[in-house]
Amino acid sequence: MDSSSLEGKIKARGQEFFSVIKDETPSIFDKGWWTGKLTDWCMSNDNFKVQLFRFVDVLPYLTTSESLSRHMQEYFAQQDEDIPSVLKWVAKTAGIGGKVAGKILSQTIRANIESMAKQFIIGENAKEALKVLTKLRKNNFGFTVDILGEASVSEKEAEQYQLNYFDLLDSLKKEEKNWTSLGDTASKLDWGHTARVYISVKPSSLYSQTNPANFEGSVKAISDRFKPILSKAKEMEAFVRIDMEQYKYKDITLEVYRRLRSSSEFRDYSNFGLVLQSYLRDTDADLEDLLKWARDESLPFSIRLVKGAYWDYETVIAEQNGWEIPVYTIKAETDAAFERQARKILENHDICHLACGSHNIRSISAVLETAKTMEVPEDRYEFQVLYGMAEPVRTALQKVVKRVRLYCPYGELLPGMAYLVRRLLENTANESFLRQSFAEKLDIDKLLEDPAEQLSNDTKVSIFNDIETEDKNGYRPFINHPAVDFTKSDIRSAFPQAIAQVRRMLDRTYPLLIGGRERRTKDTLPSLNPARPSEVIGHVCQAGTKEIDSAIEAARETFLSWRNTSPKDRAQYLFRAADIARNRIYNLAAWQVLEVGKQWDQAYADVAEAIDFLEYYGKEMIQLGKETRLGRAPGELNHYFYQPKGLAVVIAPWNFPLAISCGMSAAAIVAGNCAIYKPSGLSSVTGFTLAEIFQQAGLPQGVFNYTPGPGKIIGDYLVDHPAVSVIAFTGSMEVGLRILERASKIQPQQANVKKVIAEMGGKNAIIVDDDADLDETIVHILRSAFGFQGQKCSACSRTIVLEPIYDKFVHRLAQAAESVSIGPAEDPANYMGPVIDELAQKRILEYIRIGKEEGNILISRDVPTQGYYVPLTIFTDIKPEHRLAQEEIFGPVLSVMKAKTFEQAIKLANSTKFALTGGVFSRSPKHLDQARRDFRVGNLYLNRGITGALVERQPFGGFKMSGVGSKAGGPDYLLQFMDPRTTTENTMRRGFAPTND
Amino acid sequence: MDSSSLEGKIKARGQEFFSVIKDETPSIFDKGWWTGKLTDWCMSNDNFKVQLFRFVDVLPYLTTSESLSRHMQEYFAQQDEDIPSVLKWVAKTAGIGGKVAGKILSQTIRANIESMAKQFIIGENAKEALKVLTKLRKNNFGFTVDILGEASVSEKEAEQYQLNYFDLLDSLKKEEKNWTSLGDTASKLDWGHTARVYISVKPSSLYSQTNPANFEGSVKAISDRFKPILSKAKEMEAFVRIDMEQYKYKDITLEVYRRLRSSSEFRDYSNFGLVLQSYLRDTDADLEDLLKWARDESLPFSIRLVKGAYWDYETVIAEQNGWEIPVYTIKAETDAAFERQARKILENHDICHLACGSHNIRSISAVLETAKTMEVPEDRYEFQVLYGMAEPVRTALQKVVKRVRLYCPYGELLPGMAYLVRRLLENTANESFLRQSFAEKLDIDKLLEDPAEQLSNDTKVSIFNDIETEDKNGYRPFINHPAVDFTKSDIRSAFPQAIAQVRRMLDRTYPLLIGGRERRTKDTLPSLNPARPSEVIGHVCQAGTKEIDSAIEAARETFLSWRNTSPKDRAQYLFRAADIARNRIYNLAAWQVLEVGKQWDQAYADVAEAIDFLEYYGKEMIQLGKETRLGRAPGELNHYFYQPKGLAVVIAPWNFPLAISCGMSAAAIVAGNCAIYKPSGLSSVTGFTLAEIFQQAGLPQGVFNYTPGPGKIIGDYLVDHPAVSVIAFTGSMEVGLRILERASKIQPQQANVKKVIAEMGGKNAIIVDDDADLDETIVHILRSAFGFQGQKCSACSRTIVLEPIYDKFVHRLAQAAESVSIGPAEDPANYMGPVIDELAQKRILEYIRIGKEEGNILISRDVPTQGYYVPLTIFTDIKPEHRLAQEEIFGPVLSVMKAKTFEQAIKLANSTKFALTGGVFSRSPKHLDQARRDFRVGNLYLNRGITGALVERQPFGGFKMSGVGSKAGGPDYLLQFMDPRTTTENTMRRGFAPTND
Repeated sequence: MDSSSLEGKIKARGQEFFSVIKDETPSIFDKGWWTGKLTDWCMSNDNFKVQLFRFVDVLPYLTTSESLSRHMQEYFAQQDEDIPSVLKWVAKTAGIGGKVAGKILSQTIRANIESMAKQFIIGENAKEALKVLTKLRKNNFGFTVDILGEASVSEKEAEQYQLNYFDLLDSLKKEEKNWTSLGDTASKLDWGHTARVYISVKPSSLYSQTNPANFEGSVKAISDRFKPILSKAKEMEAFVRIDMEQYKYKDITLEVYRRLRSSSEFRDYSNFGLVLQSYLRDTDADLEDLLKWARDESLPFSIRLVKGAYWDYETVIAEQNGWEIPVYTIKAETDAAFERQARKILENHDICHLACGSHNIRSISAVLETAKTMEVPEDRYEFQVLYGMAEPVRTALQKVVKRVRLYCPYGELLPGMAYLVRRLLENTANESFLRQSFAEKLDIDKLLEDPAEQLSNDTKVSIFNDIETEDKNGYRPFINHPAVDFTKSDIRSAFPQAIAQVRRMLDRTYPLLIGGRERRTKDTLPSLNPARPSEVIGHVCQAGTKEIDSAIEAARETFLSWRNTSPKDRAQYLFRAADIARNRIYNLAAWQVLEVGKQWDQAYADVAEAIDFLEYYGKEMIQLGKETRLGRAPGELNHYFYQPKGLAVVIAPWNFPLAISCGMSAAAIVAGNCAIYKPSGLSSVTGFTLAEIFQQAGLPQGVFNYTPGPGKIIGDYLVDHPAVSVIAFTGSMEVGLRILERASKIQPQQANVKKVIAEMGGKNAIIVDDDADLDETIVHILRSAFGFQGQKCSACSRTIVLEPIYDKFVHRLAQAAESVSIGPAEDPANYMGPVIDELAQKRILEYIRIGKEEGNILISRDVPTQGYYVPLTIFTDIKPEHRLAQEEIFGPVLSVMKAKTFEQAIKLANSTKFALTGGVFSRSPKHLDQARRDFRVGNLYLNRGITGALVERQPFGGFKMSGVGSKAGGPDYLLQFMDPRTTTENTMRRGFAPTND
Repeated sequence: MDSSSLEGKIKARGQEFFSVIKDETPSIFDKGWWTGKLTDWCMSNDNFKVQLFRFVDVLPYLTTSESLSRHMQEYFAQQDEDIPSVLKWVAKTAGIGGKVAGKILSQTIRANIESMAKQFIIGENAKEALKVLTKLRKNNFGFTVDILGEASVSEKEAEQYQLNYFDLLDSLKKEEKNWTSLGDTASKLDWGHTARVYISVKPSSLYSQTNPANFEGSVKAISDRFKPILSKAKEMEAFVRIDMEQYKYKDITLEVYRRLRSSSEFRDYSNFGLVLQSYLRDTDADLEDLLKWARDESLPFSIRLVKGAYWDYETVIAEQNGWEIPVYTIKAETDAAFERQARKILENHDICHLACGSHNIRSISAVLETAKTMEVPEDRYEFQVLYGMAEPVRTALQKVVKRVRLYCPYGELLPGMAYLVRRLLENTANESFLRQSFAEKLDIDKLLEDPAEQLSNDTKVSIFNDIETEDKNGYRPFINHPAVDFTKSDIRSAFPQAIAQVRRMLDRTYPLLIGGRERRTKDTLPSLNPARPSEVIGHVCQAGTKEIDSAIEAARETFLSWRNTSPKDRAQYLFRAADIARNRIYNLAAWQVLEVGKQWDQAYADVAEAIDFLEYYGKEMIQLGKETRLGRAPGELNHYFYQPKGLAVVIAPWNFPLAISCGMSAAAIVAGNCAIYKPSGLSSVTGFTLAEIFQQAGLPQGVFNYTPGPGKIIGDYLVDHPAVSVIAFTGSMEVGLRILERASKIQPQQANVKKVIAEMGGKNAIIVDDDADLDETIVHILRSAFGFQGQKCSACSRTIVLEPIYDKFVHRLAQAAESVSIGPAEDPANYMGPVIDELAQKRILEYIRIGKEEGNILISRDVPTQGYYVPLTIFTDIKPEHRLAQEEIFGPVLSVMKAKTFEQAIKLANSTKFALTGGVFSRSPKHLDQARRDFRVGNLYLNRGITGALVERQPFGGFKMSGVGSKAGGPDYLLQFMDPRTTTENTMRRGFAPTND
């Protein structure tokens, strides 16, 4: 094939399209309209775009005109020249002016934004939708209809979504009889070859617990809900396309498609297609696989090729998690991929039908001309565009190609707004073809340029700036270890493998490690799998006071040389330990899965946090290890620097058995102290893995001493010991306060006033404002309250909900809580596992008993009988003075409380003795600001869950009875392990002073 | 007078001088010689210059060849390319090579440096000197001889200096008989008009306690010692010139001269002259005054006009103290002043004789031609040059002008090295005329340029860079309040005035200040003048628990708004308070002089420190008050910021009654806390001045509450109070530890774990190495031990002396201690005053009793009987285990201990439970480095006193039992009053996240 002549045809076809369109403008860019004006403002200033999109997002929640006015004002009445004056005036008037005027204006604006949404959405229900569809068909457009409703937070919602499709199909069936086929054909098929009824289905909406970690479970659940829809459609001879959503669902979706398509029931049903997104770097390979699969199975199929609509989301999520960005970051890469993949499909048109889903005239022309050049039959490809988008393009397509199908969503305003935002983003992005064509009116030759050509000509500048590769110490700047990415199958399979491997190592006996040497004691403590208490993880030798004395002696001796080891050299040991942990990450996570019952992702996150602590404190110490020159007087040299405090005792909890142990120990060590580490008896085997890592890292003997032992025997002994200078503790308030008090008593021969770093409990609240996005609120609250069984000091144990949204929230929350599954953490299907031990189980059950007296049970989930499970429990009607509202439970128990005003909610949230974490879900800028100031907790999270603080990004720790005001993983943390010193030299001698540089 | 024609003559004369000199080179620049080579290296690299000058400085102390070798190695055997390879080789060989080779080499180097010194010094004693003088006279040079010996640390040494002059005059008298007069004259006078015997005398050496603050006392003491020298000289008809030294002695010297010259005994003695330094900005005015005085009194006199030899010293001292630099900073300014002032004197030659003291051919030519043009008789002016300097110039002068007098110092090697360094500096400075003429061989026209002309042509670039005038917050960067400058007469007189004014306000009653309101109680406590206990400074109302409750209530209430006041606004109150204190500084100091017995300078320094705290913490808070953005992930906004802890209790000591009170309070307040301030009962009136200042600054009511009261009643009550969140304490270890222990017990209703910032005692040592410069060591140790009667936590109470220097040190220390005067602080003549009260007096006397049992008394000074005095006491033979070596005495008691090695000295220094301040006097780079690392105290001072830490330059505070490792006036201090918080916002909505900037 002569490519240059094809390229000539493509350009000619593109020119033709543009000439057909002439001066037509898509309504979204039509400045004569309110919508066009908004679009124009969005494109000319970013701040307004942000405010507008956010306002669009919150709009469905603004059910009263007061609320509408207030938000208008908060979003647009800023002293910001970026906000167009008309809107500002409207916003101000809404608030300040007379009630009536304000009301009318607000409603006008609401109506306008709703009409914007309606431009892209064919109705709020099936009835409205059918009306539009019928009209579209009259105008000779085919359709594919889908039901908006992306977020199913519960199985009830997922079931409802399924039911909606049944209804839709039923309605279409009735209506279809009245339709004549398109393309003036006698056939029942449009244009003689395609089903008239054509639907698209979002797979993730069919199963509320879709989760890549539980790949098989997710595939099965979605398939099970999908099958009846498919059967019904097959019966009607309708076309069904399974939509492609976010990247994390991609492989699940492909698998669902393959399984259903190749199942005996649907092998003969070729009216079933799927979607590929060209912006994904995976797509060439996915396409290759699908084509091979189809040929192997002899299953003809159809691909809608699109560029992809979640670009912003995918890049943000990937960057937040430290993943490789799955999408192309240069627009032309996507465009080139689209043409390449379309050609590939056309080359395989015998087995694969192509639906070209693009508004880009260049892309459309390329597909069309490639198909023509390759003489692909017309029934093997078609063109689809979105309803309400790029009207001139659809007009041109209809004129030139005839066969055009419109993608027509319908549904309620709420999910509709998400759809609207995506459409607005698509239209207003700097690189949008539509924006360039219709708003900026770029040169047509430029618009029709071959993207592949463009890529080879341009210097490839990604929109992502290169991250600095070196800081001033010559190290890579700190970057969090990436979150676990279960979209990768090798990662999914690494877990069961690691767990199996660990299981082969159970039941061993672990010695103490003192001064680098193993020390065995007669007294050992078994560590049990909380999900299966008969399974012994290991037997751990227990230190007594004699062993503690040895450890202190070893630490003391080593301290004399360790404190003189340079901060840079000390940091190297941490970096080495981080490398070791990185290489062992699945193994380390697996130990936790079995020893403390952590879910896969959380166990992985715990190890990642340990790695982060090692890297972060290492880098911090290199910085802090430099002497600071103070003052600038000549003849005088002042230096400020830090020295280690001495011996550090690290008393660690079991709930983050590696991360917190490692963080406290690494900080102590890198600051130049020697550490005596007492892990929790419930996680001492995981504690031993830390000792192993430090040993492998070559840490000098005696710097880190592993001395598990009974708190009753060695706890006070360690705290009271006169040789100890710093105690790093994380655990309960009771123990923390006891340590603080005991440590403050100076013992004979004690060298230093002891420094106690105590991180204690929490009674954390999440406030749900009346304008909160419940889709995200429910998911985050559930995870914050019940992730790792609520056994985190950061866990959410109170939800304070504003009255107007209370009923709706409680209803959805209850349904969501009913939807999760409970069982051993080693099975990724389980959302929640057992609590740590029998004692905890009893304590939490007692709180549940109290809760039943104080309030009412909303949810109490059944749990397995074997293992230390307690029911996932949600209480309502809890009052601020109740024990359930005041005391830390440290288990899967959540209390829902009601507040009349946001102020009251904050007051309630602040009303305990703790101040650790807190959260607010709100779309009110004012309320968010208020929370930032007045919701006084160590870590406040806005519009997200309240657990999972990351090192460096969210330094962690609280005050009041939650802690002494220190922040693990933050810039001030290491200072606590050191004392500052100053040296001052008089450099003048005999009247002569060197110049100081 | 036609200036241009004079300028022509000057240039012609300059050319003549240069042509006479031809290619002669001063020996110091003669590279054929070892000295010339060194000079050359010095000029080509600064690091070598520093090392060489420092080595020259220490040389006299290196009495053994081991010591010499070691220092050679330390100074020159660095891996530094700046050190010439020959010296490096020598240095290395000295250390590494065979003992014999090393010894020889070291001694060669010592001999060479000694010969360098001998180039400028005519001998080590009178006998040697006379030999050279006789020889010089044979070569037709006149002389003026002076005795080296600048630092008299005791009256014994000052008396010895006087005796040396008697000896010198006696010797000269004997020798003079054998001399024929210069200039082939029959007269007994050289050249027919000038005395053959001609001496110069350094006035400060005649009185060990010279001190501008005690102006009158200093003038009198110097005059008294000078008079017998003058009488003897008059008798011999010799010429005496009183030398001019550092700027701080200038006005005293001028006054001594005027008084003696105009006294009846010397009115008829015109052979008595003085010196003016042209580099001083004061000199034009001083010259004017002197000429007027001479005319008024009809007293002919003589001025040696020099440029000045302490330029480096004066600039360094001024910059360190925050004073205006008293010397010109542009070389041409000095040169122009010299010509201007010389002309002025020549214009007044009828009453004032001129001795031109310069090696600068341009300056000499200008003086010569001006004199000739003005037809000044030859006997009214002469030329003087330094012995050993600029030999070609002296040759030329002799050839051209005939009359040349050489300035000839003699004396021991030790003071000689100071003189040598000054000469080396003079020769090697970048702007040195000699360097430019003979080393760099600049163009002669350039060298002869009129300096006045040069100034008007050149852009006047000072060698001092302009200090930045704004920091990033738009404020002036922090600068310490200047030290008090007693060379200014208005400052000297401000003190007695302020004291008198304060005295008129004694005996008043002071109320509490709670919530901005005065509160009077029946119970009052008198505050007494410790030097005169019958004098009541004031009666201070005492708070009981009821008043404390009120204060806490007031603070609590105010806190709710104060914590929301922006850090910037809070800082403004501190800046305003600083302004108020600055305007009241003498008054505030005067209160302290009377209430706690602080010497003038120290009382002033206390107020200055208070001002510094206000400025520094204010600026720090503005910085810390900014939220820090953490992380860079998109879709996520993390902020890190600080909130105040709540209520702060400030428990302050009496010894820095304003500074420490103000520092702790200002820190608490600016961080957003409200403060309850309990001053010491011994300084509550000064404490009240702090309350006044904050009130005047407009601090909101209740933010700062003044509640003096009995510690026994309100101390624990405050510490235990559940409403208190932070306690800032400075005082004794016993009280500090009690507070730490009590505060750690959580009380019912207590919100926060209490933070205790405790700065406690010290048992500070100064190590005197065997190569220490005793001149500076003695002075600094005395001041560190006995300044403010040793009542500072930073005071020196142990001196650990290396064996080789022990006897010499103890001898000089004892003599110095005998020389200071003791009495009320309000008289600036007194070095030491009374201790704070009777209790302290008794406690210290008890320690003296113990000391007598444990060791031996070296010095015990008599003290006044009225007032709370204790003898200034020095013990020797104190062992490390003695109570005097271990316990804090907090009074004027010093123990001297002996150490065999520097290591042992450091071990000894570290051997107490305290770790606050420490000092080392050493000229060994290795030992200084070792001390920096191993002498583990909060504030280590090298080669200077150990008290007087400055805010920002020397953040103050220690560890072990000296404190909790906090540093007042340092970068980490404010953090202790706050808790960090983190907020994290998920900014992604509906898949859309704004770009974060």
